[in-house]
Amino acid sequence: MKELIRHKLQHDFKRIKTSAKWVLFSIVSGLLVGGVGTLFYFGMYVVTLTRTKNPWLIFLLPVSGILIVGCYRLLHDEKDTGTNLVLSAIHSDEDLPLRMAPLIFISTLITHLFGGSAGREGAALQLGGSIGNGLGKLFRFDEKDKHIMIMCGMSAAFSALFGTPMAAAVFSMEVVSVGVMYYAALVPCVISSLVAHAVAEFFGVSQEMFLIGQIPAFKITSAVKISVLAILCAGVSIIFCVMLHQSEHLYKKFFKNPYVRIFSGGCFVLILTLLVGNQNYNGTGINIIEQCIDGTVRPEAFFMKMLFTALTLGAGFKGGEIVPSFFTGAAFGCLFGNLSGFSPTLCTAVGMAAVFCGVTNCPITALLISFELFGYDGMPYFLLAVAFSYMLSGYYGLYSSQKIIYSKYKTNYINRKTH
Amino acid sequence: MKELIRHKLQHDFKRIKTSAKWVLFSIVSGLLVGGVGTLFYFGMYVVTLTRTKNPWLIFLLPVSGILIVGCYRLLHDEKDTGTNLVLSAIHSDEDLPLRMAPLIFISTLITHLFGGSAGREGAALQLGGSIGNGLGKLFRFDEKDKHIMIMCGMSAAFSALFGTPMAAAVFSMEVVSVGVMYYAALVPCVISSLVAHAVAEFFGVSQEMFLIGQIPAFKITSAVKISVLAILCAGVSIIFCVMLHQSEHLYKKFFKNPYVRIFSGGCFVLILTLLVGNQNYNGTGINIIEQCIDGTVRPEAFFMKMLFTALTLGAGFKGGEIVPSFFTGAAFGCLFGNLSGFSPTLCTAVGMAAVFCGVTNCPITALLISFELFGYDGMPYFLLAVAFSYMLSGYYGLYSSQKIIYSKYKTNYINRKTH
Repeated sequence: MKELIRHKLQHDFKRIKTSAKWVLFSIVSGLLVGGVGTLFYFGMYVVTLTRTKNPWLIFLLPVSGILIVGCYRLLHDEKDTGTNLVLSAIHSDEDLPLRMAPLIFISTLITHLFGGSAGREGAALQLGGSIGNGLGKLFRFDEKDKHIMIMCGMSAAFSALFGTPMAAAVFSMEVVSVGVMYYAALVPCVISSLVAHAVAEFFGVSQEMFLIGQIPAFKITSAVKISVLAILCAGVSIIFCVMLHQSEHLYKKFFKNPYVRIFSGGCFVLILTLLVGNQNYNGTGINIIEQCIDGTVRPEAFFMKMLFTALTLGAGFKGGEIVPSFFTGAAFGCLFGNLSGFSPTLCTAVGMAAVFCGVTNCPITALLISFELFGYDGMPYFLLAVAFSYMLSGYYGLYSSQKIIYSKYKTNYINRKTH
Repeated sequence: MKELIRHKLQHDFKRIKTSAKWVLFSIVSGLLVGGVGTLFYFGMYVVTLTRTKNPWLIFLLPVSGILIVGCYRLLHDEKDTGTNLVLSAIHSDEDLPLRMAPLIFISTLITHLFGGSAGREGAALQLGGSIGNGLGKLFRFDEKDKHIMIMCGMSAAFSALFGTPMAAAVFSMEVVSVGVMYYAALVPCVISSLVAHAVAEFFGVSQEMFLIGQIPAFKITSAVKISVLAILCAGVSIIFCVMLHQSEHLYKKFFKNPYVRIFSGGCFVLILTLLVGNQNYNGTGINIIEQCIDGTVRPEAFFMKMLFTALTLGAGFKGGEIVPSFFTGAAFGCLFGNLSGFSPTLCTAVGMAAVFCGVTNCPITALLISFELFGYDGMPYFLLAVAFSYMLSGYYGLYSSQKIIYSKYKTNYINRKTH
């Protein structure tokens, strides 16, 4: 009996030590990655402002691409698969080089300065993931603990940049293997996410928050309308994923040389921008999302954003896919709202959540991020939309190294990669 | 190519058919289980009112126990393990008899009428689970689809009774195997949960909602205080689980005959009630939770509730463990708030969320239910508290057939049952 109690106490002591270790290191990770994330936020801010004031910069987009490829060549990181590498570093033991951080930092800023259409959270995930991994190496963590550090870093960077600490904490646990929650990373991710958010707030990063105002009462008719919107959004998500992957595939097929590839991609985006006649689809396009929330959108906007983003990222420019997904969802939702006569503002918000869920296959994160972006009042709408979009978006996804562990239609173990 | 497209279309058509099937059947499940849940709600209401008006009913508690055991004997369901059976019916193929529904319905009402200390959501889960399984059999679903129907039913009953459709939908996906999310049940659970909630609202079930009022700004000092509270709550959760399991074990050891066992249990609760001198710890005790929210609590309340509940449920009385967990968390949180001088109201709410998380090992559900019960404004506090309570509550849990798939401290596959 005495032996048993001693064993039990030893065990408990070990657990408490592990917990204390994670509290400490997640604060470190939150401070460091939060700081870098904040720097990146202001970098993005300056770059976007500069581009808006000097629209002619778009003409340099093709040339800027060469600079990006050059950077990656210079640091011998041509095989970098971006966010995919971060995800596969978590579920396998692939290495995540620290040089990924400066590379993605610079190349995303270049992409945005010259008007490529991309997001910034892909950059955030790579920044955070590689710094987290670096910290893990520095502290001589074993492989499994390094994985937790990568998730910590991802959460911290996402949180600093988006101002959504709750969704950021859950996202890294949910996105790697859909259906399996890496709860061992719960405390580390939550703490580093909250710390990074505090760091960002301290330096004056303002949180993205869209006000929906009046939300229609949740009744059968409105539930049906939102379900229809969510089902359509699932389709939009599939199209977006296919476009992104196909564009990469086609670019590689027709332009073997990465310099030529990115130069041509820059030219395509440039030509398209000139044809459109404005720069609504260049950069992140957060201003356009805000217009959608107010109920104004051009009918073709959602498709144009997908096209611009596929042409930009497929060619080798850097950035993320999530803000473009938000843009696409917002534009599509707003269009749906205007056509159906059902609150375009709410439809915009629901469209964003549904497309986010469709392309990332992360229903819980999508639900939580919608509370953080739009407030809690639309809850039943978001819940319903996220569920439908998850089920009907099939096994498509932004990240080809993401795994879907259980079938979406039956409780079967399938463990397949997304396409 | 043509062949491929045809194959793809057939595949998509099959998925759409599956989705449509689930929409339909989850509405049916939501309506039926929602209706039964509503009936149960009003039953509980009447029973509790009757007991409060006639405090002498407590003297009949020992005899009423004999009635409960008699009912189970009569329907040949002596081996019924309650909520555990529902959970193991989902991850194994154990049968879930339909007679569980009327049995738990009646026996929970009896327990509450005569002043046993118990909750009602255990009853809800069993009601919903067995009716869901019954529907699955009726429609000749295969084993895997029957599991989804069980989850649907659980969500619907939980939602109708508690008025928390979001947490109810996620709970059944999360609780069975912690770390694995049964997302195949996402749409079915969400829909049946929302439908059941609508049914309950239609018949006038009023939603439990506790107002926190002023929430202190989320700063380092307040975050540390809440973390300390959450860590203590993890300890309380462990004690509660151990008390529940030990009480059952000891009862069985000393009283082999179930009639004698439940009669003695009734006597213990009766004596304890007389010693306490009031009925604060009998029934669900939601009124006491409300007092905690207002900042008033007796220091021993959290422990007394655990003791009352362990004595009641261990002896064979029926009901749930979740409302008692809420009570314990609320009383402990309020006490902590009063002692530390940090908003007792917020501490009550956080205590409830943390103990719920600690005993169920369901962090996402705990987070969501705290939004539904207390509003969204305390988000960072709940997030932090739930994370700490999850990590430090070890592998203890209310339901011995719950499985924890991944270690809480490392990303290791462990697949162990809780104790």
